[in-house]
Parts: sequence; structure tokens; C-alpha cells
Amino acid sequence: MTAIIYPLRVHIEDTDYAGVVYHPNYLNYMERARSEWIDALGLGIDWQREHSVHFTIRSAKIDYLKPALVHQWLEVVSYLRKIRSASLIFEQHLRLRSVPDTIICKAEIKVACIDNTFRPQALPEKVTGLLSPYCGELP
Amino acid sequence: MTAIIYPLRVHIEDTDYAGVVYHPNYLNYMERARSEWIDALGLGIDWQREHSVHFTIRSAKIDYLKPALVHQWLEVVSYLRKIRSASLIFEQHLRLRSVPDTIICKAEIKVACIDNTFRPQALPEKVTGLLSPYCGELP
Amino acid sequence: MTAIIYPLRVHIEDTDYAGVVYHPNYLNYMERARSEWIDALGLGIDWQREHSVHFTIRSAKIDYLKPALVHQWLEVVSYLRKIRSASLIFEQHLRLRSVPDTIICKAEIKVACIDNTFRPQALPEKVTGLLSPYCGELP
Amino acid sequence: MTAIIYPLRVHIEDTDYAGVVYHPNYLNYMERARSEWIDALGLGIDWQREHSVHFTIRSAKIDYLKPALVHQWLEVVSYLRKIRSASLIFEQHLRLRSVPDTIICKAEIKVACIDNTFRPQALPEKVTGLLSPYCGELP
Repeated sequence: MTAIIYPLRVHIEDTDYAGVVYHPNYLNYMERARSEWIDALGLGIDWQREHSVHFTIRSAKIDYLKPALVHQWLEVVSYLRKIRSASLIFEQHLRLRSVPDTIICKAEIKVACIDNTFRPQALPEKVTGLLSPYCGELP
Repeated sequence: MTAIIYPLRVHIEDTDYAGVVYHPNYLNYMERARSEWIDALGLGIDWQREHSVHFTIRSAKIDYLKPALVHQWLEVVSYLRKIRSASLIFEQHLRLRSVPDTIICKAEIKVACIDNTFRPQALPEKVTGLLSPYCGELP
Repeated sequence: MTAIIYPLRVHIEDTDYAGVVYHPNYLNYMERARSEWIDALGLGIDWQREHSVHFTIRSAKIDYLKPALVHQWLEVVSYLRKIRSASLIFEQHLRLRSVPDTIICKAEIKVACIDNTFRPQALPEKVTGLLSPYCGELP
Repeated sequence: MTAIIYPLRVHIEDTDYAGVVYHPNYLNYMERARSEWIDALGLGIDWQREHSVHFTIRSAKIDYLKPALVHQWLEVVSYLRKIRSASLIFEQHLRLRSVPDTIICKAEIKVACIDNTFRPQALPEKVTGLLSPYCGELP
């Protein structure tokens, strides 16, 4: 299984009064990492609009292990765990760039494929074909 | 000139690592106050979509006088300063609910009327008619 | 078990380019509902600071059932499922105010009690005492 | 006068239901550009905390010329217009990376130097010294 690495900087806008990243904002980082990956495969938002193929989040589980601090350099390590007929399961870890053993949080995200009316649809073959090299389990 | 009062609570999501509301987020409060006002007049998003009349921000000036803190109760005092042919000028103050003399910030916001393709269009008569009682200067 | 109801309005700032509330932002709504509840019990941020008792999110699971739209009126229904020695388990549902059967998303949030140095500490008796009437399972 | 260029990607979290970047969020981009610049000079948050020197926004003016869209690559061009005794005036333009003539918005930001109690203080000589090469007008 191939891991995709996405680097990012913690900005002031991500933090809260407790001095750390506000807990929902870690999901933003996970989203960016998935988006950039999909985009790099040629399946970005332009492609999605052209083919009436959209992605929506069905569920998210996130374990918070350690807070991230303003202006830290982090990276998201993303794995595609499963390709189902109409959804994808991602596992994503956020860690310090300088100390990759320091895991900040771990998430499992289920992404469903939907059409223009928000109804589920099967993943197009092009999507399955481009993603399957990254994944152990096929639909 | 009639002032419209909009109350709000500072949520954790609005704050930053410095322990105060993050500076761009004060514009969110101003936006909510204008939106609720317009909505209460029957000119909300449903009406806007039905009539292909949309509003966009052309400019914002904001003076920050005092920081707002997590879980404070605030209120936005909104005035409609000018109605032009295709735009509106609002003046808005954010203050403490419990001590209305304590002004947190003051903003001047220029809102333009646009069509579905983001092009400027004249304010519909219905909008001008409903808003003019709140304003000294008419188009 | 007692449910606590927290009403809210979807603001423009909560939405994304897909026209619905951006998925991490539903956690903001859950957080606001918990914060206001705790605050109403006299255990708000001032009390927390005075007693060096802080709360942090250990894990969140969220199932997204239906998207929320701009300017909808929603409400969070919050239950306290478990009181452990140093943590609390909340279950929270977000639903339409006008059609309470319409569940938008469901979350399970684990909140841990920490000290000023982010280390776990036992829930103070005052917290357990004030929250236990809302919960079936005690520590 | 030297311009500092800061590149960025529009993320989904930055957009709103209208399909464009939500208007307060452009100020986030400006803030990131200033923060990274200051940080690169060795005056970042660690230095600020060590020396009890903090920066806060006194005022912001922003003219919105053209909306930015999800996943566009943009860049902020930042100029330091004035160094006063206790404040800095920045001018910042946001533009498309691929078509630098396409200006999305222009901002003027006044940043004040404050101490640990949020009171104004003079800019330390180190700050003035490091920033003056970028600026025409000295205090």
C-alpha cells in the first residue's frame, strides 16, 4: 500500500484560544491531503463537474493524540484502505514533519461518490482504475 | 436612521492562539447581522435565487479597537448609510452586550448587487423600497 | 437520560462551494452545544481557568446523513452517555428545527479532563456531581 | 520597495455556498503572507514570545475586485509601506499565479506592536532594522 505525503503549515486561523489547533480543523488538513491527491491524478473538481461525479463525506472518525501548535510544519500521510462500489475508505495520519514519529491525530474517512442531486452512484471505472494501484482491496 | 441590533456569542471556533477573536472573523459577525436583517425583510437567499439578484462585498474597512474574548456576548449595531443605484453602504459596530459603550470594532461595508454571472445590476425596486425607510440617502 | 437542545442558524461562513455546510464545521455545532451546556451549569471557561480544569477532545466519530443548507435553522440534541474517571462521552444529533425527524448528522465525542500542562486529570467532584443527573452511567 | 511573494492554494474550507472564497477569508491569506515574511526574518512567534513583543491588527481595508475559486493557485504580493514608531502599514495584493495581471483583491493592513497586556509599545530596534530595507519610509 502506497502512502501519499502532504505537507502543511499551521496558520493562525487554524488555532483557538487554548493555543492549539481547534479540533474540527484537523479534518480540514485531511481534506486538503485527499483533494490534492485526487487532483494530481487528474480527477480534480473540473473533472468531477464535467462528469457529474462528486464526492461527499459519509463518516469520519478521528483520534486526537497530541495538539498541534501555531506555525508548526506538519504532514498528512494518507492511505487508501478500501475501494468499494460507491465509496472509498481513507486512513490518514497527521504528524510533525521534523519528528515523523510524533503522531498528532489519526483519522478514518469514508468518502461516497454522488451525482449532481446528491444521490449515491457507482465509482466510475476511471476513478477505480486510477486509485486501485494505491489500495490493497478492490471492489 | 434606524439601527438594527444583532446579538451573538463568541464561540471557540472564532478565537485564535492569542486568546482573542481572530481578526478576519469579526467580518463574519458583520455578515451575519446584515444577512439576518435582509432575511427578515423577505429578501433572503431564497428570494435572491428566485429573482437572480445576489449580493457581493465590494469593499470592507474595519477598525479594531478592543479584542473580543471567548464566550462573550456581543451585538452588532448596523446602519444602512447609503442606497446607490447598484450598491449599499453599511456601517456596523460590534460592542459588548453588557457594556454597550465598549466598542470592539467598527466597519464600513460596501455591498454590490450582481446577477447570476457576477455582473453588477441595479438594485430592484423592491429592495430599494424595503430598505429606504432605514436610510437617509436614496439613490 | 436528559437531552439538551441547542438551536443554531447555518451562516454563510459554515458553507462551502458545494452549497452545503462544509463537513468539519458540523463539529463546531456540536462543540457549541456542549460548551453552552457546561457553561449553563456554572462550569464555563472562567470556572475552568480558576480551577485549572480544562477539557480537550480525545476522539470524534461523525456520521453524515444529509447535508445542511445555508440559513437553515437547526438544533443539536446532546446526551451525556458516560461519565468516566477522567473523561465524558457525549452523543449528539444535529437535526432540522422544523422537521425534527430529519437527522443531519450524528456524533460521538469523547472529552477528556486535563490540567494546565495538557496532562489528564480526574474529573473534579463538582463536575461529576453536576453532570451525573444527566447521565445513566457513573464513574 | 521590495515585494514579497507568498503562494497559496484555495482550499474547500475557504469557499462558501456562492462557489467563491468567502470574503473574510481573503484576510487569512494576507495574514499568512505577513506571518511567513516576519518568520523568515527571525521575528516569528517564538521570538515574539521571548521578547514580549506581539503584533495585532489595528485596521484593514480591502477592495474586492474579482472572486477567487476553489483550488485556484494564487499569490499574495506584500509591500511594507510605512514603518511608524509603534506600527507598520502593509499593502497586499492577491492575484492569480498563472495570470499575475488578474488582481483578486487589494488590502491595506495596519499592524500595531503591543506588549503582553495588549498595550501599544514601540517597535524594537531589531524589528525596525530588519524591516527597513523593505520600506521607503522610516519612523
